[in-house]
Amino acid sequence: MNKAGSCATVSTRLNLSLSLSLSLSLFGLYFADGKRKVDYVLVYQYRRPSSLHESPGQHRLSVISNGSFPRVGSKEPEGVKEEHAEVVLDMGPADPAEGEKIMIREEFEANLREAGLEMERDNEHKVHGQGFIRVHAPWQVLSREAEFLKIKVPTKKVYEMKEDKGLSATMSAVWRKLNQPFQPNIPHLQQQSRTKFLSHSFSRDKLHLCDEWFPILHAWFLKTLTFALRNYFGEKIGLYFAWLGVYTHLLALASLVGIIVFLYGCFTIDSNIPSLEMCDETQNFTMCPLCDRACDYWHLSTACGTARASHLFDNPATVFFAIFMSLWAVMFLEHWKRRQNSLNYSWNMTGMEEEEEHPRPKYETLLLQKRQRKRRNRKKNKNEKLTWRDRLPGYFINISSILLMFGVTFAAVFGVIMYRITVSALLAMSQDPQIKSNARVTVTATAVIINLVVILILDEIYGSVAVWLTELEIPKTETNFEERLILKAFLLKFMNAYAPIFYVAFFKGRFAGRPGDYVYIFNDYRMEECAPGGCLIELCIQLSIIMLGKQLIQNNVFEIAIPKLKKLFRSLKEKKRAPEERVEQTGRALRQWHLDYNLEPFDGLTPEYMEMIIQFGFVSLFVASFPLAPLFALLNNIIEIRLDAKKFVTELRRPDAVRAKDIGIWYNILSGLGKFSVIINAFVISFTSDFIPRLVYQYMYSETGTMHGFIDHTLSYFNVSHFKAGTAPASSAVTVCRYKDYREPPWSSEPYQFSRQYWAVLAARLAFVILFQNLVMFMGVLVAWVIPDVPKNISEQLKREKTLLVDVFMNEEKEKLQLIQSLFSKEATQTRQQQSPLSHECQMCQMLLQISLFKDANPHRQHTMTCSVC
Amino acid sequence: MNKAGSCATVSTRLNLSLSLSLSLSLFGLYFADGKRKVDYVLVYQYRRPSSLHESPGQHRLSVISNGSFPRVGSKEPEGVKEEHAEVVLDMGPADPAEGEKIMIREEFEANLREAGLEMERDNEHKVHGQGFIRVHAPWQVLSREAEFLKIKVPTKKVYEMKEDKGLSATMSAVWRKLNQPFQPNIPHLQQQSRTKFLSHSFSRDKLHLCDEWFPILHAWFLKTLTFALRNYFGEKIGLYFAWLGVYTHLLALASLVGIIVFLYGCFTIDSNIPSLEMCDETQNFTMCPLCDRACDYWHLSTACGTARASHLFDNPATVFFAIFMSLWAVMFLEHWKRRQNSLNYSWNMTGMEEEEEHPRPKYETLLLQKRQRKRRNRKKNKNEKLTWRDRLPGYFINISSILLMFGVTFAAVFGVIMYRITVSALLAMSQDPQIKSNARVTVTATAVIINLVVILILDEIYGSVAVWLTELEIPKTETNFEERLILKAFLLKFMNAYAPIFYVAFFKGRFAGRPGDYVYIFNDYRMEECAPGGCLIELCIQLSIIMLGKQLIQNNVFEIAIPKLKKLFRSLKEKKRAPEERVEQTGRALRQWHLDYNLEPFDGLTPEYMEMIIQFGFVSLFVASFPLAPLFALLNNIIEIRLDAKKFVTELRRPDAVRAKDIGIWYNILSGLGKFSVIINAFVISFTSDFIPRLVYQYMYSETGTMHGFIDHTLSYFNVSHFKAGTAPASSAVTVCRYKDYREPPWSSEPYQFSRQYWAVLAARLAFVILFQNLVMFMGVLVAWVIPDVPKNISEQLKREKTLLVDVFMNEEKEKLQLIQSLFSKEATQTRQQQSPLSHECQMCQMLLQISLFKDANPHRQHTMTCSVC
Repeated sequence: MNKAGSCATVSTRLNLSLSLSLSLSLFGLYFADGKRKVDYVLVYQYRRPSSLHESPGQHRLSVISNGSFPRVGSKEPEGVKEEHAEVVLDMGPADPAEGEKIMIREEFEANLREAGLEMERDNEHKVHGQGFIRVHAPWQVLSREAEFLKIKVPTKKVYEMKEDKGLSATMSAVWRKLNQPFQPNIPHLQQQSRTKFLSHSFSRDKLHLCDEWFPILHAWFLKTLTFALRNYFGEKIGLYFAWLGVYTHLLALASLVGIIVFLYGCFTIDSNIPSLEMCDETQNFTMCPLCDRACDYWHLSTACGTARASHLFDNPATVFFAIFMSLWAVMFLEHWKRRQNSLNYSWNMTGMEEEEEHPRPKYETLLLQKRQRKRRNRKKNKNEKLTWRDRLPGYFINISSILLMFGVTFAAVFGVIMYRITVSALLAMSQDPQIKSNARVTVTATAVIINLVVILILDEIYGSVAVWLTELEIPKTETNFEERLILKAFLLKFMNAYAPIFYVAFFKGRFAGRPGDYVYIFNDYRMEECAPGGCLIELCIQLSIIMLGKQLIQNNVFEIAIPKLKKLFRSLKEKKRAPEERVEQTGRALRQWHLDYNLEPFDGLTPEYMEMIIQFGFVSLFVASFPLAPLFALLNNIIEIRLDAKKFVTELRRPDAVRAKDIGIWYNILSGLGKFSVIINAFVISFTSDFIPRLVYQYMYSETGTMHGFIDHTLSYFNVSHFKAGTAPASSAVTVCRYKDYREPPWSSEPYQFSRQYWAVLAARLAFVILFQNLVMFMGVLVAWVIPDVPKNISEQLKREKTLLVDVFMNEEKEKLQLIQSLFSKEATQTRQQQSPLSHECQMCQMLLQISLFKDANPHRQHTMTCSVC
Repeated sequence: MNKAGSCATVSTRLNLSLSLSLSLSLFGLYFADGKRKVDYVLVYQYRRPSSLHESPGQHRLSVISNGSFPRVGSKEPEGVKEEHAEVVLDMGPADPAEGEKIMIREEFEANLREAGLEMERDNEHKVHGQGFIRVHAPWQVLSREAEFLKIKVPTKKVYEMKEDKGLSATMSAVWRKLNQPFQPNIPHLQQQSRTKFLSHSFSRDKLHLCDEWFPILHAWFLKTLTFALRNYFGEKIGLYFAWLGVYTHLLALASLVGIIVFLYGCFTIDSNIPSLEMCDETQNFTMCPLCDRACDYWHLSTACGTARASHLFDNPATVFFAIFMSLWAVMFLEHWKRRQNSLNYSWNMTGMEEEEEHPRPKYETLLLQKRQRKRRNRKKNKNEKLTWRDRLPGYFINISSILLMFGVTFAAVFGVIMYRITVSALLAMSQDPQIKSNARVTVTATAVIINLVVILILDEIYGSVAVWLTELEIPKTETNFEERLILKAFLLKFMNAYAPIFYVAFFKGRFAGRPGDYVYIFNDYRMEECAPGGCLIELCIQLSIIMLGKQLIQNNVFEIAIPKLKKLFRSLKEKKRAPEERVEQTGRALRQWHLDYNLEPFDGLTPEYMEMIIQFGFVSLFVASFPLAPLFALLNNIIEIRLDAKKFVTELRRPDAVRAKDIGIWYNILSGLGKFSVIINAFVISFTSDFIPRLVYQYMYSETGTMHGFIDHTLSYFNVSHFKAGTAPASSAVTVCRYKDYREPPWSSEPYQFSRQYWAVLAARLAFVILFQNLVMFMGVLVAWVIPDVPKNISEQLKREKTLLVDVFMNEEKEKLQLIQSLFSKEATQTRQQQSPLSHECQMCQMLLQISLFKDANPHRQHTMTCSVC
């Protein structure tokens, strides 16, 4: 897309210090008359005189919207909400079609004027640089748009809200106390007061009902000074922070339970029979070698460390925690729905209706081209639109690119596996015992770091590719564009972040074969197996490093360092500019809009949400293997909220305030992740952890009913004479070695076949998956059903407000009727006394009747109110 | 509840013949002045003179609402919609508190008059019998209520809807053609026209915008004459029939696929190897006896018939059909959501908001009692309401009753099982070979019929119990009451209808033990086993008989015979009444309301929905075992729709029209059933049918890769010498008999233990359940995602309408502004010419400004329009 065609928005960087804001109000927030407020600022750039064209002083300005720009030309629906927002139409590189641009700009300004907006521009005739046009939206425009948008405003009528009583009141008080430290320290004007102003869709007819205490609309907008997020940034960004708040609050709960589960693991580690048995050197299990030829037989007790560590995460409490976290995800979504509905209510958004959206410029351009083509082919079709035929190439490229990128992701995972296999093999062949003993740790650590780096790089690439692919689809509206972009970006980034984790959880070690019949890759390298302590501990390491690394690096590098670097770069560029210009600028006092223009433009909330959703995946999907994940997420978010807030207020141009009722497609993604997490956790517990084999052993095979002998039971026998030629280790003292699997011993009738235990354990694992999934889903439905979407007090208040409003209007109507009747009777007496210009008065009266509020006449009935003066 | 306190509604039985409706309009549809229409009729009954009280001519009328009666006293919100509906306040048995009743009735009538309604009563002074008060709702009342209810009415503005083009247009045309026979044969006034009148919430201010072609509200109501269901009965009943229509349409699709699956079974029956092997007499499997002592060993080939029959339902196509039906359920729900949204749009219900509902009289009574008690205890509390403490006894009785009824249901199922076991045992001991050979058929058939009768009886009992239990809970509003009643009734009736089917599907034969170690009930009777052909054929028989029997009996007996009987009974009672009264009545012409009063009152839609939902359960839950279920449901529904329509139009009093946007809790129940059906079908296929064992055999154990040898593989060996003493049959030629199970043979090291095959098959079954459930759930989500809730053209039209409406208002505003300005300038010139009563004119002008539509003045700005005449 043509960069010149993008128009960006600048925020009035209302610094939070009062002194500055006071000086601002005197210096740049008003038109020259000091009365009319600056509501928007348009920016264009004068052409440099060194350019090819003549006519100095001509300036270019593009009107093609980047979508976050409200439909100024047509209806200006955002105008009402964003009194203080300023729109900057950015200028692109020099372009030959200069004349056309000027025409477009003039048409644009004319449209603004026709819509009733007032404009002011600098008097001085600059040669080049930025020119600013200030726009003021007068009262008429604001009130008209407020009426069309059905914006709800408070009326004079006050009513008392129901008090919380008893237990719930105490609990909410305690909750508020607990929350205090997490809340920003701002003066709360809209305290938890017991009274509420009845609100009603704005209507100029009903203006007299509006509360004067709040001096109607303008005063209502002045509440921006409370600095509450929504009032300053609009509902869409307000909803993001509210969502982040709910998520973080609930993470605190999850962290607490996670810590308890972890502590349970810590405290029971010394009483856990399987890990004690593994560490017991007297049991002396001789294990088959971990690699061909180079590795020797080894004793299981040497893996004691990982066995103990794996108990920290692989214990019965984890099962409970997985169930808890699945329900937690449901609870989170339900709580968010409630919160969203509460916010909609207190932000008076309940009656908001969807607007018809303008098509994106690119869509319109293509449509125009298509029409011209059609006209040439003499086809007529009024309701022309882009069909799937026009989009076919785009879709094709889309699908193939996405498949390609999936391929890249899998290739990256496979590459790391290959790295691990080959390096392990190389290290195993090393003669240095030091290297040999640390081989596993070295390989695992380096592999995970490679994984992490690959993920971070691909993440950035996929982000850009998703934008490019979505452009190719030519979505009709900006909402369409955003939804498709989010879905694609999510799909790609999700795959990218989770593919290695999925591999470790469900595939690693499953296809390694058995002694004497190992699986080889490229005919040379044995497939890798999990550590002797089980796959769960490896999953845990993988998960924690990727999660922490991703958060730390993305938070620090991408969110702090890179913006700082960009700013530095811009200021350096600024310094290189012609010095006389700078003198000119600094000579005059810098207005607020000059300062704001230097800030970063606002890119939308997608990256913020994406980061949190991927984190939500870490917290919910594999939580069975890493109960501390919610804790790390919580710590990250407490920092994140502050960084985000600082960024929004001081480092970005002020975003356009956009009305929104919900968080859109993110909710669907969250809910999908929540559902997916149930099945993933079921599989992690039953297949990755040793929970089910232990249960089966204890209740089906153990003779004492305890876990004693479990380790022996999970190890199969292998006759070393069955090793393939050249793969056996040199040591010859051993005749039978053990390996972890449920297979028949060499002396059975079907040696090395899966044993009856194998099938029994498999059946138990699968039964557990079914049980877990259905139980959790059922409990989830129950939780969702118990927590109503709309808080009860709000649904009651909504209905109550409606009833009260009807009463208010009824009373008002009666009063007016009386007023008019008294006026008419006065009229009549006066007329009878004067007996002069009767026909004139009658005319007035008729007119009054015709246009007044009381024209409730049915044309087919004859009881219209008649003028007594006629 | 006091029966006297119920108030019922009567329908104006507008017979569909035009002649009758014409005569009606002359005779009873208008007040005596022939102009004002009768909108409601109130009925009360004169006390018989033979009663204890004196004062003849006094009459009683109760105002306690049964909830379907609109809140006439307060706001009369339904008044607008139900122009032709008539309310009858029914009279109860004689009551001593006569005076109080009269007071209540007078207060009620005064309230009606205050709300603006007009009334007319018969002049004659009857001694006893019914008295009718006709109510007329004048234009003012209608328009006021229309405004409060935000009823949308068409405006003058017409716009063209987008045409369907290409494939979708052809398809919808074909669909319409195909549907023709299912549609009632009524003149379609609202043809598929391309234009639509822009509609807008009714507002008296905007009345001049309303279309005069449709003479506004009254004419709009006249559309009732199209006899479209919704226009005649209101949205709630309209939605029921629309829902039934969508369901029946989609059943046609399901039936078609079901028939194909069934035919597949029929055609492949002769090529099915397992059933051929079972019928093959040369294979000669000697089976262990089916009962102790009395039964002999038998040959498997004698069970050839059931084996062949079970192939009809137990074949690979069934698996496909189960998946199809699960997706069908999702599709049905999604289609219904779309249809509902379409209807909401075309019925102009899109802006409908929820109303605050009045509490039920019983709730208010109890609240009053509580308050009085409190006042006596000198406690003060303004916002008094009933808490869970007040409801505790009710909840307690509820839970215990529901548990009791579950117990009754299980007891009934268990009773039938006992019947089967004992009678089978008795018949087996019979000496008559005729009886012996037919034993199984006799027992099964009689048992299912007993089951059916028990289900039908309990169904009626549970219906009444649910009402009683819900009353005990003291729900606050009528909506609450209905929801709780529906949930309870559904739970009880669902358990009742499905408990025996669940038993056959998942429990029958699972706990029978094995030869030599059978399970006995009451130490004497062996637990029953499934027929040799498998459990699926038994499930199929059970399901089909219960489903068909329930539908036939409930349709014929309960919906036709019982109402007929009731009518007969009423007319007999009528005949017994004092003959002089009849003479009196027949002497005068019978008005429409006399005829209508003789019809059955309308009981609500709950029984209709319940019947269909239970049917939906039969169609979706166990469809894997009976692919013809949708066909039978379809046939039933085609009859049902006609019976229902006839009943509503000719046999019931006309129900109150009630506005509704959706089908309420029924949707949740449907969606719950749909989800439940996925898991049930997964279990039926994997555990009830032989699908998985066959697959496992073919791919794991079969040496040829075909099904040959499957029957042999499923049969275990039993050494007859291991029979417990006294249980072996007399025949001694047999040493080893076979039985259906996967157990080790007598000669293995662990005789009669579950074999490795058993565990492998179990694991495969469970894996199939997981695969099926998740695959179908995922596809369901996909289907739900592909089918948008709101049809695209409707969401587009909604947005377009909004834009158009804004344009209309903008134009209107401009015109008015011009009108006023021209008037004022005329005013000014006139004033200047006359220079007389200036202050008076100025006064008028100020008033005009103050109350006119154009008071868009912001009190804090000074550019208010000023009167030029002042």
